[in-house]
Amino acid sequence: MRHVSYGCCPGLLPIFGPSGVAAPADAPGSSGPEPKSAGPVDRNALLDLAAAARILAAEGVVDAFGHVSMRHPESPDRYLMSRSCAPALQTADDIIEYDLDSTPINANGRGSFLERYIHGQLYRSRPDVMAVVHSHSPSVIPYGLTGLPMRAMYHNAAFLAAGVPVFRVEEKFGATNMLVSDNRMGQELARVIGDKAVALMRAHGSVACGPSLQIAVFRAVYTEVSARVQQAALAHGLSISALSAEEGRLADETNVTACMRAWDLWRSQVRF
Amino acid sequence: MRHVSYGCCPGLLPIFGPSGVAAPADAPGSSGPEPKSAGPVDRNALLDLAAAARILAAEGVVDAFGHVSMRHPESPDRYLMSRSCAPALQTADDIIEYDLDSTPINANGRGSFLERYIHGQLYRSRPDVMAVVHSHSPSVIPYGLTGLPMRAMYHNAAFLAAGVPVFRVEEKFGATNMLVSDNRMGQELARVIGDKAVALMRAHGSVACGPSLQIAVFRAVYTEVSARVQQAALAHGLSISALSAEEGRLADETNVTACMRAWDLWRSQVRF
Amino acid sequence: MRHVSYGCCPGLLPIFGPSGVAAPADAPGSSGPEPKSAGPVDRNALLDLAAAARILAAEGVVDAFGHVSMRHPESPDRYLMSRSCAPALQTADDIIEYDLDSTPINANGRGSFLERYIHGQLYRSRPDVMAVVHSHSPSVIPYGLTGLPMRAMYHNAAFLAAGVPVFRVEEKFGATNMLVSDNRMGQELARVIGDKAVALMRAHGSVACGPSLQIAVFRAVYTEVSARVQQAALAHGLSISALSAEEGRLADETNVTACMRAWDLWRSQVRF
Amino acid sequence: MRHVSYGCCPGLLPIFGPSGVAAPADAPGSSGPEPKSAGPVDRNALLDLAAAARILAAEGVVDAFGHVSMRHPESPDRYLMSRSCAPALQTADDIIEYDLDSTPINANGRGSFLERYIHGQLYRSRPDVMAVVHSHSPSVIPYGLTGLPMRAMYHNAAFLAAGVPVFRVEEKFGATNMLVSDNRMGQELARVIGDKAVALMRAHGSVACGPSLQIAVFRAVYTEVSARVQQAALAHGLSISALSAEEGRLADETNVTACMRAWDLWRSQVRF
Repeated sequence: MRHVSYGCCPGLLPIFGPSGVAAPADAPGSSGPEPKSAGPVDRNALLDLAAAARILAAEGVVDAFGHVSMRHPESPDRYLMSRSCAPALQTADDIIEYDLDSTPINANGRGSFLERYIHGQLYRSRPDVMAVVHSHSPSVIPYGLTGLPMRAMYHNAAFLAAGVPVFRVEEKFGATNMLVSDNRMGQELARVIGDKAVALMRAHGSVACGPSLQIAVFRAVYTEVSARVQQAALAHGLSISALSAEEGRLADETNVTACMRAWDLWRSQVRF
Repeated sequence: MRHVSYGCCPGLLPIFGPSGVAAPADAPGSSGPEPKSAGPVDRNALLDLAAAARILAAEGVVDAFGHVSMRHPESPDRYLMSRSCAPALQTADDIIEYDLDSTPINANGRGSFLERYIHGQLYRSRPDVMAVVHSHSPSVIPYGLTGLPMRAMYHNAAFLAAGVPVFRVEEKFGATNMLVSDNRMGQELARVIGDKAVALMRAHGSVACGPSLQIAVFRAVYTEVSARVQQAALAHGLSISALSAEEGRLADETNVTACMRAWDLWRSQVRF
Repeated sequence: MRHVSYGCCPGLLPIFGPSGVAAPADAPGSSGPEPKSAGPVDRNALLDLAAAARILAAEGVVDAFGHVSMRHPESPDRYLMSRSCAPALQTADDIIEYDLDSTPINANGRGSFLERYIHGQLYRSRPDVMAVVHSHSPSVIPYGLTGLPMRAMYHNAAFLAAGVPVFRVEEKFGATNMLVSDNRMGQELARVIGDKAVALMRAHGSVACGPSLQIAVFRAVYTEVSARVQQAALAHGLSISALSAEEGRLADETNVTACMRAWDLWRSQVRF
Repeated sequence: MRHVSYGCCPGLLPIFGPSGVAAPADAPGSSGPEPKSAGPVDRNALLDLAAAARILAAEGVVDAFGHVSMRHPESPDRYLMSRSCAPALQTADDIIEYDLDSTPINANGRGSFLERYIHGQLYRSRPDVMAVVHSHSPSVIPYGLTGLPMRAMYHNAAFLAAGVPVFRVEEKFGATNMLVSDNRMGQELARVIGDKAVALMRAHGSVACGPSLQIAVFRAVYTEVSARVQQAALAHGLSISALSAEEGRLADETNVTACMRAWDLWRSQVRF
């Protein structure tokens, strides 16, 4: 692990702690040689990541549980995520760097989320993915329990129109505690997601991802909203004219821009 | 574009910016000669319009998206609407003047909402309309998806008793990104609304309008509330004795007065 | 109308205004000679009444509309209710004294609620009633629309176990604006309520009453909560073991005491 | 009752009041000789217990009613619970010590909850139980009314997978006011709970318990959330793949640790 002076880098702060010694992970990672940090990350990026966690809490996507990560802006083989703590409490100083086996690079005694393998394996299998949200948002869970397909109820949820696969952990792993607690499980989840934006996890929650932190957060929020809208539409007992695949594709192009309006609002409401 | 001193008009402020040069619209408008401003607008009217946006956010009718406009108080061929930003953040200084082709008169570099054509075309087709709200309020979307007719569940929603048409964008325009992004689409939407107070937009949201800013806001709020009440009543599995057309007509007369009590409450809660 | 000095009555304030001249009612009252005030009311009672309105708003029973009144503590032929304004904004100084024809005694230019006849006629027909709440709480309206009988879902809502009649304004008055806007309509509503604690009003809202201000507020709140619980229980598609009439009677005896724990909480949260 | 100086016990405060005289209970307890206090309790434990009540209010599990208790940390034959007041208002100074007959040891005039027998009898029958929550959380009540079995909708609610029995008070006690108001009723409720974490009470509410204060609070919260998720899943009209018994057992082991992340968040948000 490098020892670096940051005096020359205004706006840049190390994302690892003072001692420079990696703490043992909560769960086994790769057994190779100790990985090196990909280097410091702009403080604003870390603040945005911590803010993203607080936004997800404020929007009801996460409660005390759930997590959001982003790929390291300069090193595609690293990602950044808070130490294990409630999203609404996260700060820039809580953020740890991980390699794609989800081995923490600079934990310095800080605990890691048990389910970080969701993130590492998705960054590995999907080079287009720059951010990942894992949540147990309550309006979404029913679809994973019943297998009723989630569909895109309106343009903001257009990214659902391509389909929402369901990860059923028991199919490969039998009876478990439901958590994605190692790399094999993370790999299988990444396989199920395929090239989609969102996957459900039976009796557990869901994963949303996207080409930027802002888009991943946007998708996590509107997955939850669309789930509520679909729940109400179901009760009409009539056929539901959801977005077609083509409408979904076209509307999602707009969302990639439009999501910044949501981000700007949400970000302005975060207080650290 | 006129260059005017406002020193002599206490309480009046220009609604266009300092440079006096109209910014290019986000989307094509009319191709005629550059339109002129209809003149300054009372500061309190602008504050009320910005407050209306914040009220709609506070009442859950809009989130980061959606917009409210009012016709220019002195020029029926102009309307006023915020630059493109989240409703909860709008201020009087964000408000732009548009002609009925939705060409911005005084944008001065400020971005316009992509869907402003909803507003321009409705002001053109409906001389009685003085304000328009476009939203994606989540309890309303299901009705546009299933075609189940929205009805007036109680006197506050009396304006729904005349009927709530559904705009299905695909019927005339095929697969789109669902947005009303030019004047032809706005015109078609205005045709579907006809003389009604509210129209639904399939897999998108709704439009509410009225003879004053206060009434349009009132209608947007109670469209959402009535949608929730209808959703619950549906689950009873019994016939629903909604307002009759005549009851709706009579109750709506009272609402035109009563809505000021709601406005006074909501307006008192807005902080800029 | 008496002209009185209140300097000698600490804690007592006149509930009528300075001029001593009754303002004309918003709607026709009795045509007899001008009624006299029953005298000043303890300031704390007026504060509690204004607080009750704010509590109902905070608990989601009323929004900008709805009203709460109490019988005059010393004169059974008078009642007290705010001038026409949103419940969340009411203060002790807004409270007007009415006779049982709902003629304001001391309005002094302050507007009266159009539907005050609900209150006056209920005080006339029910000597046991000391307070009345009229609301449009959204979870309750569906039952008035479908006729599905509301039942007592748990002990806090025990007062519903005796039955919840529905007032259908059209049966006697044909197509109206749905409001109880004169004494004849108020009388008919009082007839429908009979000796019950709550009545529904089709496509409008409901009325709750009780032997004290605290109990009427408690009943209005738990009518709303019980309506939500029943809505969810309905969806189970199984028979619902609501409180029996006898259980309701026994549990309501406890509520009369227990409601003070709720009142103490809610009252402590009111800020004027 | 002992008279003790606490000057030598920093961080420890008496949980009984100054006079040292036990107040009469609100309801009959045991008729044996006056019980003695098990001694002072760490101030932080009392603060946590009061905070637990406020957390349950903030999370919507309790409103003005409901209560949480913990077993005395040093004396298994004693438990601690607030005097009768709304959970959101409780402080460390409100906490009273009870024996397992629910006779208050140090009430000093403070009123006791009528239903404290729920707690006393559960501590008696279940040595593993260190904390108990009784609530009327509205999403849970429907299951007690219809008998539809509650199941564990996701890993956070894993403790439900072992089954959720229903206490039907009328089976042994006929028509009552629905409250568990003496030791016989508390005993019968404890018998129905058996070795489970949660039991429903028909037309009343539910009880959650656990091996620590934090786990009991966690269970009360996620019983409510799981009930909402199940309600939505039901409406899909498909079979629900809830946690199996084995998945529930495994996931609950994780929860016992994970619940501290929720507690840390909730506790940080409590203001006294």
